[in-house]
Amino acid sequence: MKRIALILSGCGVYDGTEITEAAGLLIALSQSGHQVKCFAPDRPQSDVVDHATGDKDDTRRNILAESARIARGTIEPLEALREAAFDAVAFPGGFGAAKNLLPFASDGQAARLAPDVAAVARDFIAAGKPLLALCAAPLVLGAAARDAGILGARITFGHLAEGKDLADAIEAWGQVHVEKAVDEPCVDTVNRFVSVPAYMYGAATPAQVFSACQAGVTALDELLGTTEPAA
Amino acid sequence: MKRIALILSGCGVYDGTEITEAAGLLIALSQSGHQVKCFAPDRPQSDVVDHATGDKDDTRRNILAESARIARGTIEPLEALREAAFDAVAFPGGFGAAKNLLPFASDGQAARLAPDVAAVARDFIAAGKPLLALCAAPLVLGAAARDAGILGARITFGHLAEGKDLADAIEAWGQVHVEKAVDEPCVDTVNRFVSVPAYMYGAATPAQVFSACQAGVTALDELLGTTEPAA
Repeated sequence: MKRIALILSGCGVYDGTEITEAAGLLIALSQSGHQVKCFAPDRPQSDVVDHATGDKDDTRRNILAESARIARGTIEPLEALREAAFDAVAFPGGFGAAKNLLPFASDGQAARLAPDVAAVARDFIAAGKPLLALCAAPLVLGAAARDAGILGARITFGHLAEGKDLADAIEAWGQVHVEKAVDEPCVDTVNRFVSVPAYMYGAATPAQVFSACQAGVTALDELLGTTEPAA
Repeated sequence: MKRIALILSGCGVYDGTEITEAAGLLIALSQSGHQVKCFAPDRPQSDVVDHATGDKDDTRRNILAESARIARGTIEPLEALREAAFDAVAFPGGFGAAKNLLPFASDGQAARLAPDVAAVARDFIAAGKPLLALCAAPLVLGAAARDAGILGARITFGHLAEGKDLADAIEAWGQVHVEKAVDEPCVDTVNRFVSVPAYMYGAATPAQVFSACQAGVTALDELLGTTEPAA
């Protein structure tokens, strides 16, 4: 049993966390016997999207309050997360990762991690603890690697047909993009990063996305069982 | 491959659909090879709850727009659902079932199904097609059975310690409550109802809730493979 921090970025693929990925990670981590605590930034969402129409809404929503819908109310502000209390950290995807964790959707390659996200990623990387990210959320790994002076970390956004902008960004940040299938983890054993495409493949089925969650957790488990990272 | 209509009631356990149950059903139905379409009422939610604090909000949200967060935008108004186009209908739980599908949370045993929900349940029951419901959503089955003049339909809300008000209601409506474990389906082969407790057990793990979803779909598959309902 390991202690995993799950970082949410809202509730709904177009302005927050992708819901099947978040629930799939909660289920897969629970199936592996882990203890999960949820966290989210306690600040306004970048935007609010009506998911039925795709139109932007003019209302405001708080990332923590919306993420709490996935967490059934059991959630803490990201600023309260202490790396020492956890063995690994996991980021489900969705546009919330590219809007609320770092402003990639608006700023592209110039985007910097939000300070609360940067602090968490920096601390887990410095402690040599694994970071798992799905879909668009490996942007956090790429930006954190750049900030830590890491070069050549291996990260996937699936295939270039759908993930080219994201792959180009992490390559511009000094990291390496690796093409992977929907549920095929990209494991960087040196930097202890696991990334899995999941809904980067827009036509994926819920079963495939869950398979991606399970494969990511299996890869995470292998890293957590490794006292010395493989070369 | 069967065609399943999934009926959502918002997005978040306290004022809408329970998210792990909804995603778990999407995954389990996908694993069984079924084709799923999502539907939700196109009308305002009964209320809006801040899931981080538990406080009621004074904003308004539309059930369809919020449910679309779970459905990744691919969803239709419940009024557009035609029973002839589907082999079965499924209802994940959450307070949304007891607030937005029928006003049980406010009216108790006097609650009647909302007209759009009543029409769908009536048509599937009349056609002898299976209805699957998790958690609090078997309230829809109980109310629809009453409206159809059915007596003695077997339905579960888990154990009476957590589900007594709901069990009392369906018994007052002429149906029979059966205690079941978290992931143990209650199958009424005469009326073709499947109910599974899932998060009626508030301390359930995500893995148990997913097991409940899979067990419900397995029971549904058995009913769908049965041309003549068992006695």
